[in-house]
Order: sequence, then structure tokens, then C-alpha cells
Amino acid sequence: MRDFLPADKARRERVLAVIRDRYRAHGFDEIETPVMEDYDRLHAGMGGDNEKLAFNVLKRALSPEAIAAAADDPAALSDLGLRFDLTVPLARFYASHRAELPGVFRSVQIAPVWRAERPQKGRYRQFVQCDIDIIGDAGARAEAELIVATLDTLDALGLVGASVRINDRRALAWILNVLGVPDDAHAATLITLDKLDKKGRSGVVEELYDNGLSVDSVERINEYLAALLTDSDGIEHASAAIPVSEEAIIRALPVADDRPPIDRILEIREAVSAAVGLDEVPLVFDPFLVRGMGYYTGTIFELAHPSVPYSLGGGGRYDGMIGRFLGQDVPAVGFSIGFERIVDLVSAGEDAGLDAVVLVHDRDVPVAELVAVKSALVTAGSRVRLEQRTKNLKALLERAAADGYTAFATVAAGDDPSELELKPLA
Amino acid sequence: MRDFLPADKARRERVLAVIRDRYRAHGFDEIETPVMEDYDRLHAGMGGDNEKLAFNVLKRALSPEAIAAAADDPAALSDLGLRFDLTVPLARFYASHRAELPGVFRSVQIAPVWRAERPQKGRYRQFVQCDIDIIGDAGARAEAELIVATLDTLDALGLVGASVRINDRRALAWILNVLGVPDDAHAATLITLDKLDKKGRSGVVEELYDNGLSVDSVERINEYLAALLTDSDGIEHASAAIPVSEEAIIRALPVADDRPPIDRILEIREAVSAAVGLDEVPLVFDPFLVRGMGYYTGTIFELAHPSVPYSLGGGGRYDGMIGRFLGQDVPAVGFSIGFERIVDLVSAGEDAGLDAVVLVHDRDVPVAELVAVKSALVTAGSRVRLEQRTKNLKALLERAAADGYTAFATVAAGDDPSELELKPLA
Repeated sequence: MRDFLPADKARRERVLAVIRDRYRAHGFDEIETPVMEDYDRLHAGMGGDNEKLAFNVLKRALSPEAIAAAADDPAALSDLGLRFDLTVPLARFYASHRAELPGVFRSVQIAPVWRAERPQKGRYRQFVQCDIDIIGDAGARAEAELIVATLDTLDALGLVGASVRINDRRALAWILNVLGVPDDAHAATLITLDKLDKKGRSGVVEELYDNGLSVDSVERINEYLAALLTDSDGIEHASAAIPVSEEAIIRALPVADDRPPIDRILEIREAVSAAVGLDEVPLVFDPFLVRGMGYYTGTIFELAHPSVPYSLGGGGRYDGMIGRFLGQDVPAVGFSIGFERIVDLVSAGEDAGLDAVVLVHDRDVPVAELVAVKSALVTAGSRVRLEQRTKNLKALLERAAADGYTAFATVAAGDDPSELELKPLA
Repeated sequence: MRDFLPADKARRERVLAVIRDRYRAHGFDEIETPVMEDYDRLHAGMGGDNEKLAFNVLKRALSPEAIAAAADDPAALSDLGLRFDLTVPLARFYASHRAELPGVFRSVQIAPVWRAERPQKGRYRQFVQCDIDIIGDAGARAEAELIVATLDTLDALGLVGASVRINDRRALAWILNVLGVPDDAHAATLITLDKLDKKGRSGVVEELYDNGLSVDSVERINEYLAALLTDSDGIEHASAAIPVSEEAIIRALPVADDRPPIDRILEIREAVSAAVGLDEVPLVFDPFLVRGMGYYTGTIFELAHPSVPYSLGGGGRYDGMIGRFLGQDVPAVGFSIGFERIVDLVSAGEDAGLDAVVLVHDRDVPVAELVAVKSALVTAGSRVRLEQRTKNLKALLERAAADGYTAFATVAAGDDPSELELKPLA
């Protein structure tokens, strides 16, 4: 968990303002939920491995007997916990407020989440997530709106050239069937295939054997992977990136009698292409993009940018999840961008807006005079800081310039405040 | 704890943007600290009664033995807690980062805090506080800057006519001495006097007797209160409001041989008057304004507005507190506005900014066409929502208007998107 000093905090707020503005323009409405949710809801199996990382909140006024009785059942000590993602709270929110929301509800949530991770570089126990979700639309329009809004937001942040890797859980199931993986081994096989970028092909093959998959299936997966990941120069890559066209995708998939379920991906491609007005779209098909969460049911995607080797966000369709709260199925699809990663990539940029003036005053200037001079400048539209003159004036002005101040003036006792002379800060 | 739906969330964000902008103009720098602080720091006696209301976070991976051993010591179950105010985190922040901050540090914090209050109307367990603090300035300049910035912010929110009630803990101590209250009874007497607006004069007198104060002291306090609270028409009020001038204050205080310590209040008055450019200032002296927290050492104040009978914020000087973290005394003074109360008073207001367009489309319009029309409008600077036409078009448009949309257009299959006709929403 981190403190944010003024310069960092100002940068974060500037990035958040751009994200808010763009998502709002694309028709998403911001909502907010409390940071604590009921313990039982956080531990209902919808958060995957993140549930184990939840910070749980101690019940108030526990008696000694209640504590002793909880020795073998720590869950009895908590009734609340800090949210570990924004998806579980969104599902709860939607189930509570459905009647007050539009039939197709496009939400934005920009808020911190907490995970009790082991401290390591680039991992934080409190971090901000930015999620957009569309609830109530089963069609490709929803995925297309999410992708277009996300790419537009990255552009607005100056991160041009971003692209989206796309796949579909139904296409993944089809591939596994073609390669002879039995239905009841799909889930475990996907978990293993999701480690392709970390373990490489040989590591994945080893783990598939460990999983107890048949030799025949493992060999077919291995052969398919080898062919898929090797380019025309014979070099093997960690992942595949196929242009999103019917021909290219079918060529990349294993040979089978039936047509693979890729129509949704093609429809999304057509819509994104129409939106950006280009035939060449920032979309690539990755047949082994899996995404970790068990709740995805259809399209899945990940956000990539050429400046970094890791993903900047991701999401997918989770048509079954809201139904678990509501007792009836509601289609839903979401796209989450990794705010902490993005804020590190965005250049510090300009502190737009107000003129910023440091008033350096002598020790003997009466307080009333100082406060009046400051107020006059603030009223005229400036941002103003009062600083008592120190021996090292240069250091004082450098520090103010580093804090974003652009001009300074000196104030001595008896000066006429209407004759203040503003000088630019280096 | 509350969910915020789109209209409420948008209003909150608009109010926050105004507050951020104004405090920034007055030279305050925003910082952010993690929502969790160490358990020991939250329970070090600096939070007063709020410490008892802290939500404490369960340690991770507690063994059954550790839980059983904590039966009589629930504190052993927690290593972290949710902050109950922004002052304890600020003191910790300043002690950690002093070398990176200006000599006089003006901070803004706008962030949620949590208290395990019994649920009741108008009390929330999660609520946003907006605190400004000036650390490192022992002079009246600091109080004056806080008051001027706060009043300017209220003005910018449309809450004109706000005023600040002011007192000084040193003046309170002087009053108690004059009325014969021994030093070691000051703290308990102040706690009782702080209940004047709830219990009235007779209730306070009763509690002072219960406290064990001498009959002579209680009678002198009672006489003084009666005279102070009764106006020239003989009507007794719940609190006193004396114009801030040397003459009026001395007339309102009990008669004594030595001069009361009111110079700081008079100096603040002079500075605020110079800042607002008026001789009449929105400041009143209240000799029995106490403020609950034990850490105040000098000036204390409360924000009032004619539209409501309760305070909209408050603060004071707490010169001793930062020193407890740092091992050396550092002057500090802060002013906190009650965001939740203020947001309820601010009129819903206009949703400034983007044109907002609802595109009502027939079911058979191809997704690519819809997404393209939407993108073209977004790129041209509008906020856009896609809605599939329903039987009740009127209801659909009314709902969009309630969500802040200002225009609509219909889209049928085969329409030329360049000939979209925008019509105003009622």
C-alpha cells in the first residue's frame, strides 16, 4: 500500500479525469459501491483465487466465547470484507437496483480494490481498477462498444497503437474437443494452457501429463501448439496472433469436420472496423488466450500496447454470473483496464488549467496584507502559494517550479499590492 | 453504507471537482494515503472516541491456537484497520515524507473514512471527508488561509452566506480559570460544556454537579451562561454568537484582572476581512464552542450555513499531534468540511459539458452500422447512448432525459448515417 505525494496524486487525478470523460462520452454511467461487501458474498466462489486474498473485517463486539469458538472456523470472526474486484460488487449492485437502471445498463466503476498479496515489485495490496460493463445486451454490439471505448480512452491518454487480443471460450472448447480432450478435463486443461506465456510449450505439455490427460490428447495439443506458435522463419513464439478474418482464423485452427464457433469474433471485427473507419483493425485472434476467471462464457479479450510486454487490461462475457444473484440469467460483458499500469505509462504531461503563482514574502509583512494579496490573485483565476522568504531563495523557487508553479512575485512590508510584479519561474 | 446510482454519483463527482479546483487554487496540494493503517497507530489515543468505532481487519492466516489465545484480547486478531478520520493518516504521512514536502505544507485530502456507527438517518458507516491542513506554520496566516479557502469553496458550490464560529482553547482555559474551575477539572468541564446545544443550560449544570465540580464554580458558570445566552429581549438561546471585535469579545467574557488570550482571534479576523475586502466578516466568536477532539491546542472553528441548523464542518489547531509521530513539535491546523452534508445541500445543477445524444435504433440495424454512427458522434464531441427501440418510445426517451441526455435520433436499417436528424429531448 502506497502514499501518493502531491505530484503523483495530481498525475493520477489527471489520468482519471481523461478516463472518466471518455467512458462517459461513450455512454457509460459511473456508479459507486461501498468498499466493504458481506463476507459470504465475497466468498461465494465468484472471485476465483482472489477470494483467498480478501482482507476480512473483524466483527464488532466479539465476546471471548465467540472468539474461542471460532478457533477452527476463522470465517466466523468476519461479517464483512474489502472487495478484491469490482465485478462481484457490480453483480450485487445490479441485482439490488435493476428496476432503477436502463434496460441495457452501461456502467463505469473507477475505484480501489484490495488483495493480500505478498509484497513484490509492481504488485500492490491496494490498487485502482477501472471497469466498464454492459449488462442486458447479449449481442456483439456490447463487445464492440467496450472495445471501441477502451481504445479511444487509450488514445486520449496518448497511448496510441494499443490493440486487443480476442478469443471466445466456445472456440476454446471446440479446439479442445477437436484435439480429443474430454469435456470433464476442459477446465483443468484451460488452466494449464493459460500458463503458456510463463511456462512455454514444454512446461505446458509436462503439466498436461501431470493432469492425467491421455498421451494421445497431449501429443495432439503439443503438435498443434508447435505448428501454431512457429512462424514462417521457423522461430517459435510464446503466443499466437492471427489476423481476425474468417480465412486466417480457420487456417490457424485444427482441422475438423464442423465449422468453429467464431461468428461472434467476426461480427465484433466488422463493428470495430466500421467504428474506426479502417479496414485494418487493432484486433488479433489468439486461439490460446484463456483468461483466468472461471465465470467467462463467451468472448474474452486482453489489451496490449507495443511499449510493454504485459497486458494493460482484459475482460470478457460472463452471461451466467449476474443470474446467480438475481435468479434469472442476464447477459453481461466487461472490460477492465489496469489503471496502475497505465498511469505509469502516461507521460507526466502538463498541469493544465490555472496560472500558478508563488508569493515570496518577507517575515515582517502583516498577515492581513499577505492573505489579501493571495485572495486577489485567486479571485482573478490563479493558483497561489504563500512562502516566507528563506536564505536560499533559489532552492525555494526550484521546489515551487517542481510542484508546478509557473510564476513568482516578492512581497515586502508596505508594498502596494496593486503593483505586484509577476516573474516567470524557470 | 450506500450504493450510488448514476445521477447521485455524477452529482458527487461534480461537487468534488469544484472542491478540488478551489482548494488547489488556494495553494493546497492533494495527497492520498491507503485506506488501511496499522492497528496500533489507529488505537494510539489520537482518535478520541472514534477509535472505538474503527473497523479492524483480521490478520491473514491465523492459526487455531492464535485465535484461541486471543479470546481475552481481540486486539491480537488485527494488524490493520480502516481509518476513521484523515488526521491520523496525515500525521503519519507527514512524519514519513517530511523531507519531500515544502517547509509549510498545505494538504488536501478528499477520501472516505469508516466508522462502525449504529445505523441511523443521516449517519453512514462509510462517508467522504474533505480536509485541508497547514503543517509548519504557527502563525495566524495559516488559520486565515484555511478559513478564506473554505468560504470561497462554499461560495463556488452556490452555498453563499456561510460563516465560521471561532474560539480558542486558550481562551476557554482562561474562562474556566476566571470562573474558578481548577486546572485538573478543565478537560471534564469542556466535555460537558460541549453538550450545551443538546442538553441546554440546565442539563449542563446538572452534569457539572455530577462531575463533582464545586458548588461555587457551577454557580458561577451557570450565572455566566445565563447572561451570555440571553439576548436583549430576555430570550435565552442555545449558543452565543458575538461579533469578532476586541470590544465585543471582552464585553462577552467574564470580568477579570488580566486580558483574555484573544489576540490570535483578532488577528485572524483582520486577515479574513482584508481577504474578502469587507469590514463585515463572516466570523463570529462563540465562547463555548469546544469541539470534541482532545488534541486541539489553540484556535477552533466550526462552519455554519443559514439553511441548516447543524454545522457543515470544523477544525482547529493541533500543534502537539504531529510531534507524537515525529519526536519534535510541528505546528498544524486543519479545517474539515462535511462532504456528505454539503452534497445534500448543493442543488442538482446542470450536467455541464458534452452534448448528450440517445440513438434509438430498430432491432434489424446491423451492429457495425450502429457502432459506426455512435463513434462518429463521440468523435465529434458528444456523449452517446445506444438504445434499441421499445414499444413505449416515450418512456425510453423520458428515462434518457432523466439521465441527462439532451437530444435523440432514430436509426433504421439502410439509413444514411450522414443524414442523422437530431431532435431535442423534452
